[in-house]
Amino acid sequence: MRDFLPADKARRERVLAVIRERYRAHGFDEIETPVVEEYGRLHAGIGGDNEKLSFSVLKRGLDAEAIRAAADDPAALADLGLRYDLTVPLARFYATHRAQLPSVFRAIQMAPVWRAERPQKGRYRQFVQCDIDIIGDATPRAEAELMTASLDVLDALGLEGGTIRVNDRRALDAMLDVFGFAPDERPGVLITIDKLDKVGASGVVAELRERRATAAAVDAFAAYLDRPQAADTAFDDAGIRAALPAGIPDDVVEHLVGLGETVAAARGADAPLRFDPFLVRGMGYYTGTIFELAHPSVDYSLGGGGRYDGMIGRFLGQDVPAVGFSIGFERIVDLLQDAEDSGSRSLVLVHDRDVPLTTLLRLKADLVSAGTRVRLEQRSKNLKALLERSRADGYTSFATVSADTTAESLEIKPLD
Amino acid sequence: MRDFLPADKARRERVLAVIRERYRAHGFDEIETPVVEEYGRLHAGIGGDNEKLSFSVLKRGLDAEAIRAAADDPAALADLGLRYDLTVPLARFYATHRAQLPSVFRAIQMAPVWRAERPQKGRYRQFVQCDIDIIGDATPRAEAELMTASLDVLDALGLEGGTIRVNDRRALDAMLDVFGFAPDERPGVLITIDKLDKVGASGVVAELRERRATAAAVDAFAAYLDRPQAADTAFDDAGIRAALPAGIPDDVVEHLVGLGETVAAARGADAPLRFDPFLVRGMGYYTGTIFELAHPSVDYSLGGGGRYDGMIGRFLGQDVPAVGFSIGFERIVDLLQDAEDSGSRSLVLVHDRDVPLTTLLRLKADLVSAGTRVRLEQRSKNLKALLERSRADGYTSFATVSADTTAESLEIKPLD
Repeated sequence: MRDFLPADKARRERVLAVIRERYRAHGFDEIETPVVEEYGRLHAGIGGDNEKLSFSVLKRGLDAEAIRAAADDPAALADLGLRYDLTVPLARFYATHRAQLPSVFRAIQMAPVWRAERPQKGRYRQFVQCDIDIIGDATPRAEAELMTASLDVLDALGLEGGTIRVNDRRALDAMLDVFGFAPDERPGVLITIDKLDKVGASGVVAELRERRATAAAVDAFAAYLDRPQAADTAFDDAGIRAALPAGIPDDVVEHLVGLGETVAAARGADAPLRFDPFLVRGMGYYTGTIFELAHPSVDYSLGGGGRYDGMIGRFLGQDVPAVGFSIGFERIVDLLQDAEDSGSRSLVLVHDRDVPLTTLLRLKADLVSAGTRVRLEQRSKNLKALLERSRADGYTSFATVSADTTAESLEIKPLD
Repeated sequence: MRDFLPADKARRERVLAVIRERYRAHGFDEIETPVVEEYGRLHAGIGGDNEKLSFSVLKRGLDAEAIRAAADDPAALADLGLRYDLTVPLARFYATHRAQLPSVFRAIQMAPVWRAERPQKGRYRQFVQCDIDIIGDATPRAEAELMTASLDVLDALGLEGGTIRVNDRRALDAMLDVFGFAPDERPGVLITIDKLDKVGASGVVAELRERRATAAAVDAFAAYLDRPQAADTAFDDAGIRAALPAGIPDDVVEHLVGLGETVAAARGADAPLRFDPFLVRGMGYYTGTIFELAHPSVDYSLGGGGRYDGMIGRFLGQDVPAVGFSIGFERIVDLLQDAEDSGSRSLVLVHDRDVPLTTLLRLKADLVSAGTRVRLEQRSKNLKALLERSRADGYTSFATVSADTTAESLEIKPLD
């Protein structure tokens, strides 16, 4: 877990403010849930592997007897846990407050989550997730709104040129069916296909054989991976059909084509969508469209999501369509590492020790109310070091103040 | 703990944004620390009664033997805990990162804390604290900056007219000395005096007698409480001396007078400070000035703070002067309950089912990029209910969209 010093914290808050403002403009509403959820809810099987990484909160007031009784059932020691994602809390929130929410609910959540991962480079035990979800809309309008809003966020952050890799779990299922994989082996086959980017076609085929997946199906799949690349990679009917084996149901293809046309209409240009028939995404709860946000400056994704029509029903006892997207806040902040605060005017007032506090605070108050960010610094022996420190902290100008300085006689100089 | 629905969450974020912006303008820098701290640090005696209310995080990977061994020492089950305030984390942060911070460090922290209180009205187990602290400045410049910045925050939130009750722990100590309380009974006497607002002078005197405090001292104190009120209540030398018994050291009075003059200079008016010789404030770590923010619209304080020169030293092994102020974020949000979002233009597009998604998303994109917040709603049977819901959610206008609507033919009507 990390401390954030002023420059980092300011950058994080600037990025959060842009994300919040853009998603709100697109009609999403921010909500907040408590950091802890009930232990049982966090371990109900929805969170996948993350459930094992959950931090648990010790019950209060345990006596020696209760502790001894829990020796063989450590779960009895905890009644709460820190959330490991924002999806479980959202489902619980929606089930609780549905009557007070619009029929199509567009949610923003920007908040920390915790996972007890082994410490390693670039992985943190506390990190911020930024999720948007649309609950109650089964049409591709929902996917199109998530995608256009998220591309707009990237643009507003100065990361123009984002593209979205798109697939559909139903297309994946149909493809595995076409190749002849048996239904019970498909989850394992998907886990292997998900590694295509990392291990390549030959690695995937080797692992499928290792898994003892139906041999004829592996052969058919290997031949398909090995086929000449289609010339047409447009995100339209022809391009999508060219990327898929024959035999994929028309309605799945049409759903994807419609989505592409809608995003293109919203962007006033070609849709920045790319069809990827081998995109899997890990979570077991996806039921339809799945997608990942890519950017030319990096070779990892800047977010991802998909449709999960079954999950809310587990809390509500009634199926409700839902689709979500999680923008990679921590990765985006890293990408914008060098972004400067191009914000307000800022000034360091370096004052001698003998300047009356009344003069000093009066001067500061006048400058602040005129729209300048002001830091007071008593002059130290090493003025140069003081000014360098101030510039590193984001201040852009300075002025020295002695006992007879007035607002009118203040000489403001750039810090450079 | 609470869920925050869209209207509440939006109001909280607006208040946070104003606080952040104003404190930053006054030269404070925001930092962030992890939500959990080491168990031992949270139970080091600095947090007072809050330590007992701390939520603890269960160690990972405990086996049956380790659990049985912890039966008589539940603390052995936990290695981390949720923070119960922002002061302990700040002291730890400063000790860790001092070399990278300016010599006078002005910190903002706005973040949730957790206390395992029994549920009762108006008390929450998770709530947000907003603290500013100045570390490294022993002069009254620090107190003056905290006070002027916090009054400016109230003004910016539309809560003009805030005042600050001020006292000094050294004045309190000197007063108890003048009356003749023995040094070892003074902490208990202060706890009793702290109840003056609630139980009145007679209640305080009765409790002091019950405590068996030095009888002559209680008599002297009772006579003092019973004296005719001083006519002069100005926050200046005469007013402060009139509010105190004879015999308070001059330097303590002069420090307070200087603070009043400085705040008055910064505000360009009479200082909105009121001297209260019986203000105590609970925490044991205060060493000098203590103060509370009051507002004419409420009879409880909207924040408080004080100087705590000894505490950072406990982490750093070297004394550093420090003074902090915690603005009552949750109370202020409650006060602003009815504040409207006077922000950007907002519009609900009510569309027929047969409007192509391409038309719809294109229309939305154009409006969003022109600066309007847009929500799409498919027309339902009860249009009136839909529009009422939209208005309740903060939207200010609507337009209906049919298949042949264009940006030019859109008729925008107010939602009222």
